[in-house]
Amino acid sequence: MTVADLGEFGLIAAIQALLPPDTSSVVGVGDDAAVLRAPDGRMAASTDLLIEGRHFRRDTSSALDVGVKAAARSLVDVAAMGAVPTGLLVALAAPGDLPVSWALGLARGLAQECARAGASVVGGDTARASSVLLAVTGLGDLGGRAPVLRSGAVPGDLVAVAGPLGRAAAGLALLSAGMTVPPAWAAPLVAAQRRPQPPYDAGPEAAGLGATAMIDISDGLLADLGHVAAASGVLIDVASARLSPGNLSPGNLSPGDPLLTAARTVRAHIDPTAHRDLTDCGASPGPASALAWVLTGGEDHALAATFPPGTALPSRWTVIGDVREAPEGAGVLGAAVLVDGQAWAGPAGWDHFSG
Amino acid sequence: MTVADLGEFGLIAAIQALLPPDTSSVVGVGDDAAVLRAPDGRMAASTDLLIEGRHFRRDTSSALDVGVKAAARSLVDVAAMGAVPTGLLVALAAPGDLPVSWALGLARGLAQECARAGASVVGGDTARASSVLLAVTGLGDLGGRAPVLRSGAVPGDLVAVAGPLGRAAAGLALLSAGMTVPPAWAAPLVAAQRRPQPPYDAGPEAAGLGATAMIDISDGLLADLGHVAAASGVLIDVASARLSPGNLSPGNLSPGDPLLTAARTVRAHIDPTAHRDLTDCGASPGPASALAWVLTGGEDHALAATFPPGTALPSRWTVIGDVREAPEGAGVLGAAVLVDGQAWAGPAGWDHFSG
Repeated sequence: MTVADLGEFGLIAAIQALLPPDTSSVVGVGDDAAVLRAPDGRMAASTDLLIEGRHFRRDTSSALDVGVKAAARSLVDVAAMGAVPTGLLVALAAPGDLPVSWALGLARGLAQECARAGASVVGGDTARASSVLLAVTGLGDLGGRAPVLRSGAVPGDLVAVAGPLGRAAAGLALLSAGMTVPPAWAAPLVAAQRRPQPPYDAGPEAAGLGATAMIDISDGLLADLGHVAAASGVLIDVASARLSPGNLSPGNLSPGDPLLTAARTVRAHIDPTAHRDLTDCGASPGPASALAWVLTGGEDHALAATFPPGTALPSRWTVIGDVREAPEGAGVLGAAVLVDGQAWAGPAGWDHFSG
Repeated sequence: MTVADLGEFGLIAAIQALLPPDTSSVVGVGDDAAVLRAPDGRMAASTDLLIEGRHFRRDTSSALDVGVKAAARSLVDVAAMGAVPTGLLVALAAPGDLPVSWALGLARGLAQECARAGASVVGGDTARASSVLLAVTGLGDLGGRAPVLRSGAVPGDLVAVAGPLGRAAAGLALLSAGMTVPPAWAAPLVAAQRRPQPPYDAGPEAAGLGATAMIDISDGLLADLGHVAAASGVLIDVASARLSPGNLSPGNLSPGDPLLTAARTVRAHIDPTAHRDLTDCGASPGPASALAWVLTGGEDHALAATFPPGTALPSRWTVIGDVREAPEGAGVLGAAVLVDGQAWAGPAGWDHFSG
């Protein structure tokens, strides 16, 4: 059965029937608008697009995967302001011949990731289009805390990260190399690519700890720290040793880390310059280097934040660098983030780290 | 210059530069999420899709028109809950060869309609796709009033409408008949089709007056009253005399009303069954009848609400019918709304009304 057979109202009813009970909103799916509780008196809100052929492919990602990823991308934006995600609005454009089972799998993925974040699907819209497109709006409550902007980092601050780095990029590299049935060691990387698991509660936690700036890592650690540096008018220096095996917690890049095995595997078995492009705007797999994946892979949706010096951070936050004065005449995005005091020049100089 | 030449960050900066100052939000465009004031402690939120080739065509609607329509569709959903629209999030998917001037015209239309509603563009996302698609999320504040649902109508209530009916459908019929350069009398109808002007403040007004149910008329008066009747478990009877020339205010369907002229014109000059399909899911122009347009045309986005009997309504609200007990065994959507006590059977029996 296709969504065209079911019709718009039938599709919405079928999706609604499989969503878990919605306890976060006053009015949920089915009226002109949803009504969410906003006990803080302010509401954080962010919209993200997820487009077939650009952000996912139906032949390599399941409907559940796409639902998880679509929800995660918007909910983590809300968490990156220091807010607790509460609700999700989902606009789904799809061809009429989309199987109903795919639409329901998508809804399950959205609901599953909402539940992980403590939020509910509260509304949406559907329409026909030539390919699948999702526009997902995440909403959240600040719980009395000031929103943590990109612009608040000051020289002397610590730079710290919560959540995995580079794993989704490694998973994409393995998939791109043709590893369609990943062995056990690679499964977590492929899963990270297909279903990111952002550390939502680390966002409000960072706000509570006095974070001065925060961002979710969607474009890559260096690119996203670049947004913080540019908005704050500072320079950020990342210490590569802090990203080395065994330093990132929990368990990321420990000596037996699958990221190192993945880099060895990809380099040994494929020509890294001749990868299949699985998506045309996802993180490019690029040359196989664990450090390159950690510095430039984005789709894990970890959180990066700056904190005043001396802040006692819980163990899931790993200090990876510090904030410095921007040099005279600076301001170019690309120069505002350094690695060990130098501009990052790609993986060439980092072979010691590539496994 | 195309949006591909400008790049995503360049496009966002160019759009941001032409948006008026945003006074409604705490954090606007440019961070991970926007932060809006929600002084009520609750937030109304609604998402709508607007898809090229389905809801608009770039050769018959200007970028400004599309922006106005996209904003109006979401903001009026918020108003239909009784909330005051405060913010808009805009996800824009577009081909790389879209002219930058078109994207900026779109942004002007969005900003213009937000200003009319008292809201601001507070955030969004952009991505490439093969055609233009907008997913727009409207947010609003209830100001201490209970949200007005579709499900609250009770037998004995009045049914009233604020805002124009049938004008967008008449405009579409004229455009479909090939009237590309409308004469002066037709200009308001064509404008209604291209740039709906919902009566946003009538939404909170109705809530303040004790409205028991409310909906925005996007699918047509009978279809949308059908949603209210189904959700409330009631029957709604519309009195056609209440929709006759001179009764609808302000000025809608007065004796010299352009709707009547439009029906005469379309019937005299074209074969009404051979219209050009300007959009494939917009209101079909259908046979040329002013009453049919009023009863089944949706894209004006007027508001329909039910009120307790005896409610003193301001002049822009026109009582058009009443709420009755649903008959035993009822519940079918199509039978829950009657016109003069009978199921609406199309424009055939209403020639006296067609001008």
